[in-house]
Amino acid sequence: MSRKRAIILLSGGIDSATTLALARERGYFTHCISVRYGQRHIRELDAAVLVARQIGTDEHSFIDIDLRSTGHSALTDTIPVPKGRSPGEMAGRIPVTYVPARNTVFLSYALAYAEVLEAPDIFIGANSIDYSGYPDCRPEYIAAFEKMANLAIEAAVEGRLKISIQAPLIHLTKAEIIAEGQRLGVDFSLTHSCYDPSPEGKACGFCDSCILRRKGFLEARVPDPTVYSTDSVR
Amino acid sequence: MSRKRAIILLSGGIDSATTLALARERGYFTHCISVRYGQRHIRELDAAVLVARQIGTDEHSFIDIDLRSTGHSALTDTIPVPKGRSPGEMAGRIPVTYVPARNTVFLSYALAYAEVLEAPDIFIGANSIDYSGYPDCRPEYIAAFEKMANLAIEAAVEGRLKISIQAPLIHLTKAEIIAEGQRLGVDFSLTHSCYDPSPEGKACGFCDSCILRRKGFLEARVPDPTVYSTDSVR
Repeated sequence: MSRKRAIILLSGGIDSATTLALARERGYFTHCISVRYGQRHIRELDAAVLVARQIGTDEHSFIDIDLRSTGHSALTDTIPVPKGRSPGEMAGRIPVTYVPARNTVFLSYALAYAEVLEAPDIFIGANSIDYSGYPDCRPEYIAAFEKMANLAIEAAVEGRLKISIQAPLIHLTKAEIIAEGQRLGVDFSLTHSCYDPSPEGKACGFCDSCILRRKGFLEARVPDPTVYSTDSVR
Repeated sequence: MSRKRAIILLSGGIDSATTLALARERGYFTHCISVRYGQRHIRELDAAVLVARQIGTDEHSFIDIDLRSTGHSALTDTIPVPKGRSPGEMAGRIPVTYVPARNTVFLSYALAYAEVLEAPDIFIGANSIDYSGYPDCRPEYIAAFEKMANLAIEAAVEGRLKISIQAPLIHLTKAEIIAEGQRLGVDFSLTHSCYDPSPEGKACGFCDSCILRRKGFLEARVPDPTVYSTDSVR
């Protein structure tokens, strides 16, 4: 019998890498999708290639989606990325790195692939614990997308495919995700988190994403393999 | 006070043209979005330009979304477009012109624009009556998308924007849509419906879309202004 198929949204960060490794452990035939959406930290996509190679995947597609035209984000525009904020300072409001409807656009594409490839499961590394602040990383959002998806596509309406949006990390802290990734053999030195890397691709160490990553490694008691652009991070 | 804003998905067909005209009548500031998604009948996009000019719009954006990579449709692939089927023959199953998750991908983009432009209303010319057979044109799908949308974006979660997916034609027959469009002054000679136009852009007259269009004009007792590639259609 052929393996059950899954679509994996793979950005090249810690969360999506761990999510891919989990799907592999569960025996899925994996089709990874990485999206060029006009992000400033295009370094992320190189990481997706390396991560997919290290963890393994059956297929890997890159798609172009221009989210710059909808503007309004420090991840696609020239708005400065905030630096040096504590997790406490990050909490309580949605960050300027928020990209409007990003997960909805990505999951919609994944849904189209899922129907064509007859893949019932779509994996996303969304995570609502620790600080994230993104509305489209919450369990109630994921549940609503799944419900909509099963009304949207022919294969679901005809009863041939039941779409399940799998967000296995949604209730884990960053430290728990790192511990899980380590158990699964993810090489975190290949992953990329920084919102504002140096021209050579080194992490800044002080953007929200770097700070949460560093805190996660500390709390997980796993050595942080990240190469930062300044020594002062250590 | 500034006008309430709306995003309009404008394909250049009868339904989306009438939808734009309705939004204009209701006094909205309209931002039309037309999508290049790898459709074979790219003629449709020329129609969108002409339709927007005739009806009027405040803004009009074109976006590129590659749905060919997800394949599996007579609208994006080389699968033959069915010809000469009666509405009875069309009914009862989803057509080969179905594009996986098309409305979901389009509405997701519209949602991103809606948040950036602070537009609470997203208009789509979806229509579930007569023959359509597309799962993502049904009222229950539209309702599920709307619910998901209000969980997906920052502005909705923070209570600054409540997204409403407006599908004003969803319960109308093609004839009723044509009558409504005529009342609103839509010049249907500018609209395009054919799935398989000639190289000069003339409608084939015999694909499902042409047949429903012709039937709609007949039933609405409105002269059909369409230029068909063969005289035998008349």
